[in-house]
Amino acid sequence: MKPSIPKGTRDFSPQEMVRRNYIFDTIKKVFQLYGFLPIETPTMENMETLMGKYGEEGDRLIFKILDSGDYLKDAPTEDYFKEIGLDVGGFAEMFNELKSKGQTEIPLSKLINPKTLLPAISEKALRYDLTVPFARYVVQHQNEITFPFKRYQIQPVWRADRPQKGRYREFYQCDADVIGSNSLVNEVELVQLIDDVYSNLGLPVIIKINNRKVLSGIAEVIGEADKIIDITVAIDKLDKIGVDGVNKELTEKGIGVEALNKLQPLINFTGTTQEKLDFLKTLLAASEIGLKGIAELEYIFKTLSQTSNLKSQIELDITLARGLNYYTGAIIEVKANAGTLTGSICGGGRYDDLTGIFGLPNVSGVGISFGADRIYDVLNELNLFPESVAASTKLLFVTFGEDEQNYCLPLLAQVRKAGINSEIYPDSKAKMKKQMSYADDKKIPFVVIVGSDEMETGMLSLKNMASGEQTKTKIEDIINTLK
Amino acid sequence: MKPSIPKGTRDFSPQEMVRRNYIFDTIKKVFQLYGFLPIETPTMENMETLMGKYGEEGDRLIFKILDSGDYLKDAPTEDYFKEIGLDVGGFAEMFNELKSKGQTEIPLSKLINPKTLLPAISEKALRYDLTVPFARYVVQHQNEITFPFKRYQIQPVWRADRPQKGRYREFYQCDADVIGSNSLVNEVELVQLIDDVYSNLGLPVIIKINNRKVLSGIAEVIGEADKIIDITVAIDKLDKIGVDGVNKELTEKGIGVEALNKLQPLINFTGTTQEKLDFLKTLLAASEIGLKGIAELEYIFKTLSQTSNLKSQIELDITLARGLNYYTGAIIEVKANAGTLTGSICGGGRYDDLTGIFGLPNVSGVGISFGADRIYDVLNELNLFPESVAASTKLLFVTFGEDEQNYCLPLLAQVRKAGINSEIYPDSKAKMKKQMSYADDKKIPFVVIVGSDEMETGMLSLKNMASGEQTKTKIEDIINTLK
Repeated sequence: MKPSIPKGTRDFSPQEMVRRNYIFDTIKKVFQLYGFLPIETPTMENMETLMGKYGEEGDRLIFKILDSGDYLKDAPTEDYFKEIGLDVGGFAEMFNELKSKGQTEIPLSKLINPKTLLPAISEKALRYDLTVPFARYVVQHQNEITFPFKRYQIQPVWRADRPQKGRYREFYQCDADVIGSNSLVNEVELVQLIDDVYSNLGLPVIIKINNRKVLSGIAEVIGEADKIIDITVAIDKLDKIGVDGVNKELTEKGIGVEALNKLQPLINFTGTTQEKLDFLKTLLAASEIGLKGIAELEYIFKTLSQTSNLKSQIELDITLARGLNYYTGAIIEVKANAGTLTGSICGGGRYDDLTGIFGLPNVSGVGISFGADRIYDVLNELNLFPESVAASTKLLFVTFGEDEQNYCLPLLAQVRKAGINSEIYPDSKAKMKKQMSYADDKKIPFVVIVGSDEMETGMLSLKNMASGEQTKTKIEDIINTLK
Repeated sequence: MKPSIPKGTRDFSPQEMVRRNYIFDTIKKVFQLYGFLPIETPTMENMETLMGKYGEEGDRLIFKILDSGDYLKDAPTEDYFKEIGLDVGGFAEMFNELKSKGQTEIPLSKLINPKTLLPAISEKALRYDLTVPFARYVVQHQNEITFPFKRYQIQPVWRADRPQKGRYREFYQCDADVIGSNSLVNEVELVQLIDDVYSNLGLPVIIKINNRKVLSGIAEVIGEADKIIDITVAIDKLDKIGVDGVNKELTEKGIGVEALNKLQPLINFTGTTQEKLDFLKTLLAASEIGLKGIAELEYIFKTLSQTSNLKSQIELDITLARGLNYYTGAIIEVKANAGTLTGSICGGGRYDDLTGIFGLPNVSGVGISFGADRIYDVLNELNLFPESVAASTKLLFVTFGEDEQNYCLPLLAQVRKAGINSEIYPDSKAKMKKQMSYADDKKIPFVVIVGSDEMETGMLSLKNMASGEQTKTKIEDIINTLK
C-alpha cells in the first residue's frame, strides 16, 4: 500500500510550517494589539448546531461523523418502512420486480433513504466555519462573558467541496469579531487592524468598503426593494462579468427596464470617495435606510482619515456585496494590490442578529476573517517571506568519533542554555560529508567541526555555511556571535 | 434549543487559552532549541492508514467520517445479502417471523451488518494519535526528507473514549521524534529536553527510564521469554496494585512458581541507579539482549551525568513498561514530583520499526509525547502559571462622549504603534461605571480616562486598576511606562 492522504487535504513540511506560522503569528499579534482575546471551540459540533445555517448547499458540504459504538441502534423501524411504502410485503415485491427486470444488484440506497438514515447514525459534524460556533459559544457562555466581547479564533474548518487548485477540504480561518456593540468605532478599528496586518506582512492591499443599507436603499429607490438579494448578487459580479453581464442577469431576475435604467449611473460611477458619497446622497434622498447607510460610510471614512495614516488603499465600492445575506451594515473586502492572484484575502462586515439562531436576539456584531492559505499564496508569489523566516536551527556540531561527541555534548548544552537553537549530528561514526550535507539540507547556517586538534586546544572550527569561511574560535565567542 | 457541544469536547475561554498557549509555547521553544522542526498532518486520514494500528479497541475508538455526497453508492449488493443468508426470500421470511413473535420494531442492524456497511459509507477518519500519521508522513515524503529527521508536531487527536473527568474526546498531543538514527545520543537529548521543558514551566518532575531489552532479558532468564508481554503488562501495574497484585496477575497468566520466585528480588529491588545496574548485570549475565539493554541504560545515565545538570529527579525504574508493545529500546515516563495528580505527563521511547507498516522497514526512531491537558491540570493545582500569563490588553481608553472618543482615537493609534495591546470602549455614550467594570472584568491593568479637562490640557488621567492610584500624565509618558 502506497501511503496517501485524503483528497483536498495537505501535509505541511517544516518549510511550509514556519511560513504559515509567520502569517498566523503576525495576525495574532495584531489581533492582540487591538484588544482581541483568543478562544477555541471543538472540532466537532452537534449536528443541530451546524445544519440549516449555511443553506442547502452548505448542509451538503458539512462533514458528518459516524456515531461511535452501535451507530445503527436508532435506525429506521418497521413503521418507517411502512411509511415510505416499503412494508414487509413491499420488500419482497420490490426485490422480485427488480429481478424480473434483469437487475441483479440492488443498491442499498433503494432500501434506505439517506435523509432518514443520517440522523440515526450521525449526530456530530466537523466545524464548517468559525462564525456559527462563535455564535453558539456566545449564547452558551453569555453569563461568563463581558460585553462587548472582542474575540479572535484561529482554527481549521472543513468543507466537502470538490477539491481544486487553491481550494482545500481542510483550511484555516483567522477571525476577529466584536459582539455586543453597535458603535461604528469597531468598523474603524477593524479597517485599521487589516491595514496593520498587511503592512506588517509587507503586502500592499486595497480595502473595499460598502454598506448593506446603501444596497437596500438602491433597491428601494429603483422600486425593487423585494429583489434586494438578486440585485446585490448580480452587481457583486461586476468585476467578473462586466456591466452587460450584470444587466443581463438583472433582466433575467425580472428587474424591469425602468429600474435597470435608474441603476446604470450607479454601476458606472467612478470618482473620489467624497464624490461617490455626494452622488449617493442625491440618488438615495428618498430612502431612509439608504441615507443611514451613507451616514455610516461617511463616519467610517472621515474617522479613518482623521485617526490614522493607512498604508493600504481604501475604496468605497458600492458593487461590493460578498453574497452573504447576513450582513446588515458595513461590508469589507480586501484584495492584494500586487501580483496576479485576485481572490479576496480578507472579508467581513456587520451582522445585526448573529446569535438569534441560538436564542439570544438583538446582539449586533462586526467581524473580519483572514484567509491564511490565500495570503500564503500571495506572499509566496511576490517573494515577501522574510529571509529570517526559515525552518532551521542555527548551529550544528559535527564530530569525528565518540570521544569528540562526548566532548561536544556539554558545549551543546551550554549553547542551548544561551537560547541558541542547535543540534549535534547524532551518529558519531557518520562521515564528515554526510554530516555537512545534513547541515546543507536543513539550511543550518553555522557548523562547529570538532576533531582531536580542537579537543586539545579548545579552539573550535566554526564554519559559516553561506560564505564557506572557517575560523578557529572559543565556544564563548560562538555563543556571543550567534546569540 | 439550548446550545451545547458534544460530550467529551470543550470550549476554551480566553483565560484558558492564554494558559494553554503558555504551555504549548514553552514546549515549542524547547523543541526548537533542540533542533526539532514542525510539521502538520491533516485532521482526516484515509481509513486504511489508521485501522489496525491501535489494536481492536483502538479501531473501535477511531472517529469515522461519513463519505460526502452519495455515501451509499457502494453499499452491499444483493449478492452480499445472499451471502449472509438474507436473500430475497429471506427478507420477507425474516420480517414475517419477527412479526409472528410480536416484535413490531425491526432494527436496521438486523438487515445490515455494520462491519460490512462501514467501508461502504466511510473512507476517512479523524487522527487518533500523532505517531501513525508521522510514520505515514515519513514514508510518503521519504525522498524530500533529510535523515535523521527531527520533527515536532502539536495537534489535536480524537478518541471515542467514554468521557470522564480529565479524559476528553478531543485533546492535544505534543510530540517530538527523531527518525533514522540509532544513536543513543538521541535518548540523552530527549531526557535533557524533558528536563528543560519542565524547569521552564517551574514544575519539579521525576523522569523514569527503562529499557525494553532489559525486560526481554528478564523474561528470558526466568524462562518465560514468550510471556514477555504478560510480564511487562503486569509489573507495569506495580504502582497501582502492589507486589501481591502483580504476582496474582502473573500466576493467572500462567507464570510458574519457579519463574515467579526468580522475579521477586527484581520487583522489590531498591537502591541507587548504579546498584540497580550492577544487580541487573548479575541477574541477566546469561541474556545477550538483557546485557545490551543494560549497556544502553549505562550509556544514557553516564552521558547525562557528564553532560548536563538536570533539575529533574531521574530514576531507573525496571517496572516501567508503559504497556506499549512497539517500544524496542528506551522507555521513558515523566510524573509530577509535587501535587496530588499522579498521571503521566510525558512519555516515550524507542521503536525500531515504526514505518515498516507503511512499507519502509528498518528505520529506527525515538520520541516523546507531552500531554498538554494533564500538564495544565498540574500547573493549575500548584498555582504555577506566571502572573504575566493573563488574557488581557494593557490599556483601556475610557471616554465621556463622542468628542472625547474622537480625541482619543489618534492617541490609541499612537499607543498601538508602540506595540502596546490597547483598546477603547467602543460605545462612547456608555456610563463611566460600565466602562470601568469592563476593564475590571477583562483584568486590564491600566485605564486612561478622558473628559473635557484632559482634552484641553493634554494631561490624561491614568489609573492603575490594581492600586487605584490615579495620575495626570502625557500620552508619551504613558507609552514609555507601559512599553
